[in-house]
Amino acid sequence: MLQEIEWTEPTSGKSRKKETEELRARLSALQQEVRRKKLPVVILFEGWGAAGKGSLISDLILNFDPRGCKVYSFTAPTSAERREPVLWRYWRALPPKGQIAVLDRSWYTDVSTERVEKDLDDAETARRIGDVNILERQLADGGYLILKFFLHISQKEQKKRFEKLAADKDTAWRVTEQDWRRNRRYEKYFEAFDRMLDDTDTPCAPWHVVSGMDRKAASLEVFRITVREIERALAGGPAGRPGAEAVSAGGFPLVPMPKLSEIQLCHSLGGDDYRRELDGRQALLGELHNRLYRKKVPVVLVFEGWDAAGKGGCIRRVARALDPRGYAVVPVAAPTPDEAARHYLWRFWVSLPRSGHIAVFDRSWYGRVLVERVEGFCTRDEWGRAYREINEFERQLCDWGAVVIKFWLQIDRDEQLRRFQDRQRTPEKRWKITEEDWRNRAKWDQYEVCADEMLKRTSTEYAPWHIVESQDKKYGRVETLRVITETLKKRLK
Amino acid sequence: MLQEIEWTEPTSGKSRKKETEELRARLSALQQEVRRKKLPVVILFEGWGAAGKGSLISDLILNFDPRGCKVYSFTAPTSAERREPVLWRYWRALPPKGQIAVLDRSWYTDVSTERVEKDLDDAETARRIGDVNILERQLADGGYLILKFFLHISQKEQKKRFEKLAADKDTAWRVTEQDWRRNRRYEKYFEAFDRMLDDTDTPCAPWHVVSGMDRKAASLEVFRITVREIERALAGGPAGRPGAEAVSAGGFPLVPMPKLSEIQLCHSLGGDDYRRELDGRQALLGELHNRLYRKKVPVVLVFEGWDAAGKGGCIRRVARALDPRGYAVVPVAAPTPDEAARHYLWRFWVSLPRSGHIAVFDRSWYGRVLVERVEGFCTRDEWGRAYREINEFERQLCDWGAVVIKFWLQIDRDEQLRRFQDRQRTPEKRWKITEEDWRNRAKWDQYEVCADEMLKRTSTEYAPWHIVESQDKKYGRVETLRVITETLKKRLK
Repeated sequence: MLQEIEWTEPTSGKSRKKETEELRARLSALQQEVRRKKLPVVILFEGWGAAGKGSLISDLILNFDPRGCKVYSFTAPTSAERREPVLWRYWRALPPKGQIAVLDRSWYTDVSTERVEKDLDDAETARRIGDVNILERQLADGGYLILKFFLHISQKEQKKRFEKLAADKDTAWRVTEQDWRRNRRYEKYFEAFDRMLDDTDTPCAPWHVVSGMDRKAASLEVFRITVREIERALAGGPAGRPGAEAVSAGGFPLVPMPKLSEIQLCHSLGGDDYRRELDGRQALLGELHNRLYRKKVPVVLVFEGWDAAGKGGCIRRVARALDPRGYAVVPVAAPTPDEAARHYLWRFWVSLPRSGHIAVFDRSWYGRVLVERVEGFCTRDEWGRAYREINEFERQLCDWGAVVIKFWLQIDRDEQLRRFQDRQRTPEKRWKITEEDWRNRAKWDQYEVCADEMLKRTSTEYAPWHIVESQDKKYGRVETLRVITETLKKRLK
Repeated sequence: MLQEIEWTEPTSGKSRKKETEELRARLSALQQEVRRKKLPVVILFEGWGAAGKGSLISDLILNFDPRGCKVYSFTAPTSAERREPVLWRYWRALPPKGQIAVLDRSWYTDVSTERVEKDLDDAETARRIGDVNILERQLADGGYLILKFFLHISQKEQKKRFEKLAADKDTAWRVTEQDWRRNRRYEKYFEAFDRMLDDTDTPCAPWHVVSGMDRKAASLEVFRITVREIERALAGGPAGRPGAEAVSAGGFPLVPMPKLSEIQLCHSLGGDDYRRELDGRQALLGELHNRLYRKKVPVVLVFEGWDAAGKGGCIRRVARALDPRGYAVVPVAAPTPDEAARHYLWRFWVSLPRSGHIAVFDRSWYGRVLVERVEGFCTRDEWGRAYREINEFERQLCDWGAVVIKFWLQIDRDEQLRRFQDRQRTPEKRWKITEEDWRNRAKWDQYEVCADEMLKRTSTEYAPWHIVESQDKKYGRVETLRVITETLKKRLK
């Protein structure tokens, strides 16, 4: 894409000034519409060093009310950021509906300059490019407008700008040894940028290459494109954006799963056996936790299952074996306003464990294809493509190095009734049972259809489901601990 | 306080077990009440290395529903955390109303071990102790229950535990060279801990020293105290906690301020002068921003003033001069649910700039003594003690090294009416004017009383107010920039 750019003559000062002023007013007005129509907007800037990203961003955001616009600058990741998946810090910056996030550098740094400097091989580069395309498709499907600008200047121009910065003692610190080296190897970077642009110029998030040779002309061009694309997105509505690819869960290595109705709920565990098994597994888990911590392996545990199936009890038995400094339970209920205003995966991304830590999700992203599907909180299209999005998400976690272990706790309808009634009868447990639980129970058949489809379509080789018989609570708890410890042992070998 | 502890004989296993079980059930039930009555609870653990904080915390939190309880572990601050005030990361961990935060180490690390290891002088130690006491008093006054546990073991016992950990290859990494050194210098640390406990054992947040010699006995003791104190707090209600000291704004070096009615709104600036002055000041501010960045000086700008006084316009002129990577505008409106559920200063603490950056607050913590006072969103006691809390807050910012510059933009009643009418008439500006603005205007006299009191009581030598005539917008903008650039120049000399 870079070859195609022409270093056009800047238009004359006067007509440019007039157009710029008109576009400024339009951008101001459009932001109000963005807010009203609840469109989330991500505008990202990549480009050569000294191409003028800073002043361009400054120029752009002055048109916006700061209440609806935030700038994020991404430099080298901090030590804390390096303990999270690469995309984590970008997910954190995701704006809520109706807001604009301006990104000064972005997820592309990881697939362009690093490609040259860390000499990434083709497989690793392809994986990273794939992740970026997945991210942008997920966001576009989630209703986000993504505007990507690449600010382009020539090698000669870059050198001139570096020299100018270096000559002034107040700005000299801005030009580093690395900048000079990059200028000398301009050809190499040109090639890497060019391939990156080609590989990620998708219908749902196309690139806009802008010449940075003349700053005012660059601003004008960025204003024009921003106005045009926001207008287009507002007209099309969140769902009408191009590029939402056909939904398909294909391409993931699936593990066959039984239907829930086929599960025999026949296992149980007596008191003494239970104590012995539980103590043994907890001691083992404690040791494994130590080793995970040292080897910096992140672990993601997911607990799903029927209401009153015993998720809380299982989680407490797991937690008891762990050092509280190295794990967190993430309880997932109806999204808060902050969460509901963003992509549905956002709240899970920002709750991921650090490397070496364990996150225990008490309910999870699978709500999308369970409660949200049953209750109609999302559209058919939305839950339909969620299987793929979830498989992609978990693939990314595994690529990062995480162990992902997912449990479905299974009981039958009668057992649920017994437990509900018991909760109702026992004063200390009464808070645990609500009208909603009874309403959900009435929809058992619908939930079972959804759960079966979920198990079938998201039990991947890298993150398979474990259906745990929880009819006998003691058996369920020990079985959960057994799966966790055996999986971790295998991983730590 | 440490001398007083007795290494008591553990009670017999049986009666202990029974009491522990009863307390567990009580803690579970109490958490539901904490939630219902919206009590925010902070439970912090300090103590000797290997005193058993981890297993104690693990034991405690197992009684709580994870939906209402979160653990925070504080180790050495990360590079990102070191660019914020010392207390910043603790403010970030503040729980909302109805939730429990358990802190594994806390703000006390900075006044105990550092006192020994960094050999802090008395003045610095006193300042830090003062800050901790201020923090706890502010939280207690804000309705927080603060439970502080110090886990105590003897030198011999600590050595024994280190040896045991070191002997097992899976736990050996937990005992560092520093741990051994600290054990050898036990006396020295004993003295530092003891002084810290004495200096911070306040009525609103007393210490509980617990013997860690026997783990089960320690758990029992922590459970007992936690039950007792939560019950007490729930009975007393958020406001009835002891220790809320008499309100006083004394002790701060105040700068005399005129009354707003005395301000002559006579200055104005013609078109050409305005352009020249503005350009000059903006260029200067750009240079100063560069130097601030290099010297890692944080800057906090506060804009308050009448509706339509021109805050937005001033802020845009300031922003235009700045590199967007080094500043953020923080617009302050009605608190979000997340913000409203915490101490009123919380949202400002978490929005502070990093060192070397500028945060521009478009309205600020002064809302407490302006809109919240006028509208009755807080009680008389609450806004009454806010002057002191704000002076303390800004004092902490200055101690951290920040430059704090506060503006009150002044116009008269007629000018506001003209601007309101202009906004109403102009379609692009109409969104800027709401019913609320008219309602606020009707309360002009009340607001003026509040603003006068605010200016009088919070214009400190370290963070004085600047009343800027904004009757003529151009004059106001240039004057704002003049104050900022002159203040920064003085600081950077």
